[in-house]
Amino acid sequence: MRQRTGFAAALALCATMTAQAATRSTAQEAIDRAPPAAWRDVPPEDLLVMTLGDGARVSIQLATLFAPVHVANIRALVRAGRFEGGAIVRVQDNYVVQWAVADGGATPAGFVAKPPAEYDVPAATGLFRPLGFRDAYAQRTGHVAGWPVGEDGSRRWLVHCYGMVGVGRDMPPDTGSGVELYAVIGHAPRHLDRNIALVGRVLEGVDRMAARPRGSEEMGFYKTPAERTVIRSARIASDLPEAERPSLQLLDSDSASFAAWADARANRRDSFFVRPAGAADVCNVMTPVRKRP
Amino acid sequence: MRQRTGFAAALALCATMTAQAATRSTAQEAIDRAPPAAWRDVPPEDLLVMTLGDGARVSIQLATLFAPVHVANIRALVRAGRFEGGAIVRVQDNYVVQWAVADGGATPAGFVAKPPAEYDVPAATGLFRPLGFRDAYAQRTGHVAGWPVGEDGSRRWLVHCYGMVGVGRDMPPDTGSGVELYAVIGHAPRHLDRNIALVGRVLEGVDRMAARPRGSEEMGFYKTPAERTVIRSARIASDLPEAERPSLQLLDSDSASFAAWADARANRRDSFFVRPAGAADVCNVMTPVRKRP
Repeated sequence: MRQRTGFAAALALCATMTAQAATRSTAQEAIDRAPPAAWRDVPPEDLLVMTLGDGARVSIQLATLFAPVHVANIRALVRAGRFEGGAIVRVQDNYVVQWAVADGGATPAGFVAKPPAEYDVPAATGLFRPLGFRDAYAQRTGHVAGWPVGEDGSRRWLVHCYGMVGVGRDMPPDTGSGVELYAVIGHAPRHLDRNIALVGRVLEGVDRMAARPRGSEEMGFYKTPAERTVIRSARIASDLPEAERPSLQLLDSDSASFAAWADARANRRDSFFVRPAGAADVCNVMTPVRKRP
Repeated sequence: MRQRTGFAAALALCATMTAQAATRSTAQEAIDRAPPAAWRDVPPEDLLVMTLGDGARVSIQLATLFAPVHVANIRALVRAGRFEGGAIVRVQDNYVVQWAVADGGATPAGFVAKPPAEYDVPAATGLFRPLGFRDAYAQRTGHVAGWPVGEDGSRRWLVHCYGMVGVGRDMPPDTGSGVELYAVIGHAPRHLDRNIALVGRVLEGVDRMAARPRGSEEMGFYKTPAERTVIRSARIASDLPEAERPSLQLLDSDSASFAAWADARANRRDSFFVRPAGAADVCNVMTPVRKRP
């Protein structure tokens, strides 16, 4: 039933599957039923893998499509070893975990000290899969290549959901260079959308970041260096031996399986629920991740 | 300027202040400018104060208005000492921290083993202060007596924002009795709205709950009792000597100061922002809390 016999046939089949799934699946069932072809490897060139001082591994997918200059900076910093010996310097409750490169060290070749404001992209960028639900911050929300996005008539942008990674900056027009990054660990601070460059999403290990003690200084900065968590290593996955890569996969946001799953997130059919919402916030529809089986 | 000279004059003054504040204040300024009368003590009878094994204090305002039977159960359990020696048994990342009474112990007098489904109330309950922004889950969102609420034409309900506290339950029609409670520590799981009884909000100490290690078992339950955090004490604040009460205050959600603050949350005027959103999710407009000066 999930074998594709040709493009047109597959499309017809997908439409049927979507309709069936939409009336039947729980979110877990939609994931369990997804065929192997609905899962896509995260390109290792787009995966930043950090190991923290306590051994926690944090894997971050980089959003090359949305913030190419910032992402290129981050790759250059990683390859120059600048994040090794850096640390988590800030944990603010219901907001962000923030980490920085080690002090000193040379500026890598090709590094752009003052990147452009990559806060949004033309609405023609990528294939938009709308969710179709009301949102306080954007005219429409949905997904592009697995990323949670907001959109108005002409522009499209990544949104600040739990686990999304952005580039710390000072006051405008500064956009941050990539030497300080943060991950969202609370209710989506969507007021930051289009005010700061989002560059990725934590696919693995956000739980280990979010469980760290909050900093006691203003905005959650740690008071003493001893409170910080050191970054033991930071690598781009494509630079690691194949056996050491995280081998993560995302559910293809253009697949029928994703449609069934997203529908189930908005219409919970688990027997626990007495009143399915019939809608969902984009940040409650974060693309499913798994390790390649 | 913030002295009230009479009800009608005060109303006129408030309207002026709101309009001025709406064009001028940052959120912090709106709080700093709020007159003493805009701050309301949390009634000590509505405040559950827990001390955890590591000394962290967690203070929870109980939502008597929305879930009176569940709240009465929780008060009775607390007064019978049932939460003392209980523990945090579950921490699931981007979802909830959950704690339970100690095993054994007598059922307190007046305890309702099977409470009604206090998932919503008639829309006439309390004074509704609308936010006026789009929401995926409710026709309207806003505040009632400081609580974040959703509303449709006829019903009104508490919403699952960060820090909100609910009553764990099994499958319906069970509604939970209050022996297991949870606090939200991630992006608002609004699909739970109207499916479970919300009974309060953590006003102090949610950061200490959210920073605990996540459980390794399914749904974030801890594998071994040793991983749990014990509840050393649990009291209703009115049963404590006055000097030991948390003495917390909330910004009155019916005040002009609140209106100015909520407006500033939707329209960030801090110099950091290049593009204020012009709107806000109700869970990003959680009523400000302070210690009584």
